[in-house]
Amino acid sequence: METINLLWLAPVASVLALAFCVFLVYRILKEPRGDAAMIEIQDAIKEGARAYIKRQYGVVIIFFAIVFSILFLLVRKGYLPIFVPFAFLTGGFFSGLAGYIGMNVATRANARTANGAITSLNKALRIAFSGGSVTGFCVVGLGLLDLSIWFYVLSFFYKDVEMAHRIQMITSTMLTFEMGASLMALFARVGGGIFTKAADVGADLVGKIEAGIPEDDPRNPAVIADNVGDNVGDVAGMGADLYESYVGTIVATMVLAVAAGLGLAGVTVTMSIAAVGIIASIIGTFFVRTREKADQKELLSALRKGIFISAGLIYISSYFVVKYVLGMQHIGVYGSIASGLTAGILIGLSTEYFTSDNYGPARKVAESAETGPATVVIRGMSYGMLSTAIPVLVVGGAILSSYFLAGGAGNFNAGLYGIGIASVGMLSTLGITLATDAYGPIADNAGGIAEMSKQKPYVRERLDALDALGNTTAATGKGFAIGSAALTALALIAAYKEEIFHLGKELTHSLLDPRVMVGLFIGGMLPFLFSSLTMRAVGKAASSIVLEVRRQFREIKGLMDGSAKPDYAKCVKICTIAAQKEMLVPSFLAILSPIIIGLLLGVEAVVGLLVGALTCGFVMAIMMANAGGVWDNAKKYVEKGAFGGKGSPQHKALIVGDTIGDPFKDTSGPSLNILIKLMSMVSVVFASFVLANSLIK
Amino acid sequence: METINLLWLAPVASVLALAFCVFLVYRILKEPRGDAAMIEIQDAIKEGARAYIKRQYGVVIIFFAIVFSILFLLVRKGYLPIFVPFAFLTGGFFSGLAGYIGMNVATRANARTANGAITSLNKALRIAFSGGSVTGFCVVGLGLLDLSIWFYVLSFFYKDVEMAHRIQMITSTMLTFEMGASLMALFARVGGGIFTKAADVGADLVGKIEAGIPEDDPRNPAVIADNVGDNVGDVAGMGADLYESYVGTIVATMVLAVAAGLGLAGVTVTMSIAAVGIIASIIGTFFVRTREKADQKELLSALRKGIFISAGLIYISSYFVVKYVLGMQHIGVYGSIASGLTAGILIGLSTEYFTSDNYGPARKVAESAETGPATVVIRGMSYGMLSTAIPVLVVGGAILSSYFLAGGAGNFNAGLYGIGIASVGMLSTLGITLATDAYGPIADNAGGIAEMSKQKPYVRERLDALDALGNTTAATGKGFAIGSAALTALALIAAYKEEIFHLGKELTHSLLDPRVMVGLFIGGMLPFLFSSLTMRAVGKAASSIVLEVRRQFREIKGLMDGSAKPDYAKCVKICTIAAQKEMLVPSFLAILSPIIIGLLLGVEAVVGLLVGALTCGFVMAIMMANAGGVWDNAKKYVEKGAFGGKGSPQHKALIVGDTIGDPFKDTSGPSLNILIKLMSMVSVVFASFVLANSLIK
Repeated sequence: METINLLWLAPVASVLALAFCVFLVYRILKEPRGDAAMIEIQDAIKEGARAYIKRQYGVVIIFFAIVFSILFLLVRKGYLPIFVPFAFLTGGFFSGLAGYIGMNVATRANARTANGAITSLNKALRIAFSGGSVTGFCVVGLGLLDLSIWFYVLSFFYKDVEMAHRIQMITSTMLTFEMGASLMALFARVGGGIFTKAADVGADLVGKIEAGIPEDDPRNPAVIADNVGDNVGDVAGMGADLYESYVGTIVATMVLAVAAGLGLAGVTVTMSIAAVGIIASIIGTFFVRTREKADQKELLSALRKGIFISAGLIYISSYFVVKYVLGMQHIGVYGSIASGLTAGILIGLSTEYFTSDNYGPARKVAESAETGPATVVIRGMSYGMLSTAIPVLVVGGAILSSYFLAGGAGNFNAGLYGIGIASVGMLSTLGITLATDAYGPIADNAGGIAEMSKQKPYVRERLDALDALGNTTAATGKGFAIGSAALTALALIAAYKEEIFHLGKELTHSLLDPRVMVGLFIGGMLPFLFSSLTMRAVGKAASSIVLEVRRQFREIKGLMDGSAKPDYAKCVKICTIAAQKEMLVPSFLAILSPIIIGLLLGVEAVVGLLVGALTCGFVMAIMMANAGGVWDNAKKYVEKGAFGGKGSPQHKALIVGDTIGDPFKDTSGPSLNILIKLMSMVSVVFASFVLANSLIK
Repeated sequence: METINLLWLAPVASVLALAFCVFLVYRILKEPRGDAAMIEIQDAIKEGARAYIKRQYGVVIIFFAIVFSILFLLVRKGYLPIFVPFAFLTGGFFSGLAGYIGMNVATRANARTANGAITSLNKALRIAFSGGSVTGFCVVGLGLLDLSIWFYVLSFFYKDVEMAHRIQMITSTMLTFEMGASLMALFARVGGGIFTKAADVGADLVGKIEAGIPEDDPRNPAVIADNVGDNVGDVAGMGADLYESYVGTIVATMVLAVAAGLGLAGVTVTMSIAAVGIIASIIGTFFVRTREKADQKELLSALRKGIFISAGLIYISSYFVVKYVLGMQHIGVYGSIASGLTAGILIGLSTEYFTSDNYGPARKVAESAETGPATVVIRGMSYGMLSTAIPVLVVGGAILSSYFLAGGAGNFNAGLYGIGIASVGMLSTLGITLATDAYGPIADNAGGIAEMSKQKPYVRERLDALDALGNTTAATGKGFAIGSAALTALALIAAYKEEIFHLGKELTHSLLDPRVMVGLFIGGMLPFLFSSLTMRAVGKAASSIVLEVRRQFREIKGLMDGSAKPDYAKCVKICTIAAQKEMLVPSFLAILSPIIIGLLLGVEAVVGLLVGALTCGFVMAIMMANAGGVWDNAKKYVEKGAFGGKGSPQHKALIVGDTIGDPFKDTSGPSLNILIKLMSMVSVVFASFVLANSLIK
């Protein structure tokens, strides 16, 4: 049977995705921004977000310049090919750009969503979801476009090299592109995560608990910072994060395609599955709509319908992609893709069970508030830990099935390619899953704007329904990002082994080699150390906010009775500065640890380090995301009237749980998946340097 | 140079340790029990502890009978040698016995300590420390005696077998002895941990927070259960736990001595280092004394002096043991022992820094109470996570140095023996470190008895000083148990590899084998799942206590004004029943997971499972122990008058932290080190069965 070349599909689908974004932006912008109060608040949020991004990029540019110089030096010394430093820069640039565009649109869609809620629930949902879709399709569109461009550019430059070797050179340079994206993502996630949670925790601690004023009350000086945080953390940060996940998964799989001897066809399948996923996701978005009076279950199923339709389309079409590009003798690869896609859906459902207040866990946590905050924390932690079991088993099943389906028992490299392509399958629906995820912060902002601009209660109620749903989709999105990260990191570790092999050394990586053991222990400790640093950063920044809010309450006369306005910009500034300062040490940790361990203990220890970080980081990230999610939704459940309702001691106990969960779920947890991938990428890029200069060979 | 046979040293030292226990018991019993009120309370505690132990052993006997039958069946089918089921039973019996004796003495020393505090601080310290020493020396004495007896018995039975093979058969049978000890330890730790923390949390939640009565107030119906818990959890549970650690470390090292080709001499060195450690520890105890008016730093240095003197004696004498038993060509083994001993001391110092209120972390956590319980939890978690770095690096250093010192770069098996003997070195001071650890609950009980029997404030103050110190030594003891567990588990995993090799299969255990990967992920998840189950058990049992205490407050008239007495026995019974019920599922998890994974995915996956559980479990156990310790001491720091003092909102916030820390540090955390070793042991014992019957070969 003839196989066909589908390489053109990727650039076409990515341009389609970007065109779809333009269409969505047009549709959003033609909606009215609402009354004068809404416009004023929206402008304040927009301005705060811009100020933050400007400052962050200022810091990031310096950091990138340093790494660029180091890479350039390594090029001069002959350790790396010439394209590497530039690939690194573009990766960082586009990762940041994806987040930036998403955030820009989100800060425009928020007030329009609030205004739409005056008309109907469906209208508000459509606007918020369109805003989220821009982030989703921007990420996948830009990601696949950049990969295609680099692929064509490098193919042109290396055109005289023999095919198999050419593909190998291209894909290994593209890993550096991904390292840039990953580093940018880490900054965006950690910095954004610190900003948003410092503002949120600070605002809650003084506003809700001390002063007893409701959430999003305009008298709270940290309220604008809190809303800015949703945009810089949950939109820009998450956008950059998932850009990195998406690109990283595809690139790592391309490297493994080469190792598996599938050459250009293996690369083409990888990109084509992503392309097919984009088209299916665009189609899926048109099915997201709801009727008036929809309850939360109905809203959730509106979003889910879109995702399931997309997934169904991918299940069908990817079969033909594999059949016509790789041929029937490799049809097992389709099994790998399907198992990845299925695993993603199962992780999503498990996350939903453990975090949504439709099910037992969130309700039990709410119930445990009867005996105070301590039992809330113990119960929530316990559910968070319990919730790791299903995703781990599902990912384990996906690893085994994708390995054996693609490679059989005997073919190691083909099996690893199977694991890689399974993660591409898992992320193929990213366009639409990210849309449902990024819609959350827009709805959250819209609710804040409605509250601050004193809209009628029914408007706020409609937006609250959308926001509560956003909590669950956010947790689902994280489960997805973490699950795919586990597979991608495995693929990257395999790529590392390949790289070391090309450098002339066969890695033994026996588990009982003492260097591997020590690497494992240190690697296992790093996610804890990293989380400690990021949680501490949130705690410190939140304390500054608490002091500032208390100061304003004390010093600004007439603030509490509404006759004077608080100084919102000050809180935004405090968060911005804290985030920039505190994101540096964790980032250094991610970049330097594999290099230092490699130089001191050799490349075997690096493999141990990566595997240890992956194992602990994977499980911990799920635990943190889900514990945070269940605390948040348990609180929301009580706010809807259960177990004493708003303002009761139970509610206060749950606010404590929610506050602890904030850095868990929005700062430390989601950064872990970038940490483990960035460490792997750094190891690959610096492999030749480390191998040549390590103390223990 | 001639080498000498020191095999007689082990039984001699162990008999010495037991004789020392008899002497200590005699010295304790000759102290007066105090006034009538003290005696009454002591009897109630003693009775509660006995009732608990009786019930627990009833459940455990059934469990042991089942495992014994399974093992016997495997003997009949030819998978195991005939001694195995009996070795299993004796291991369980002696582990339980060590805990039981320690607990029995502790429930006699508590009132005597309280009474001693009327005379002087030093007198109270001496009695409490003597009580703790009984636990310490009972554990090491019984442990080494049992090992010696088994060694001689098996030597006799296998006397016709050729020497190298004989030692191999003896040591592998002795592993089953250790599996019995380990299983008993898990029951004792988990059951005791659930009991003690359910009572503690329950008593605090209703007593301190709701009713506003002080700790150990006799009006609180859960107060006797709380004091019983100290004995069954922190003495009997810990005694069984460390018996298991001690025996396990020695046995695993003996197995590796055989693999390293050191034969009888390697076995002798292992037992002799333990023997030398016992003698040095006995000497060390005589240096523990303090002057009146000693502050906490001085008290700590009184205990520390004993430990340092013992360690110093071991540093010197173990050199000669290695020199005369193994000969100068193996003097590197001395380096391994010294590095293990040093690592233990460093871990102790690091733990002290992160938990004692003499240093930054506990004070910072206390300070964070200014902004409420949420920041207390975030800050404490963050320190707990941070505190994993030093122990991991220290253990990593010990692994590398002990491996290379004993084996050089080339000799893999000798290197593994080095890691094993390093853990023996680390635990060689166990007699005295466990004494300082087990003294804590006696002081805690004494404080409770003083409070309940309404002694003068200065008595309570003296006992509070001793108790606060006990918190730090308890945390140090845990750090020690966990650090040695990491080394022992590594040795056991190596022993597993040996066992599989003897069964005719060479394990590849490459990190990138998909079965190994899946094993790693599942293994990494197990400590989370296990902790989830144990924390949940504490939460559930504590809720029952809360309801019962509330009921008694409501229904028993005159309880609050002291004219009626609460029904203490009811609370003891609730805790007892809950502990028995809830300890079963986590124990099944530990036993069944390696067998099931082995049968489904083969022995490669088992290696991954063990390594994954070790990596995550090690780091998590440190995190949980230290986070719990820092919360507890931060609370104590405020109780001494800092940041608002007792009864302030800050104090209330810290009680929340302390309550969350309770299951962390006394139930889930310390059980993890048994979990990872028990899993390894089960894997070794069932290796031939699993290998013959696994689906994937």
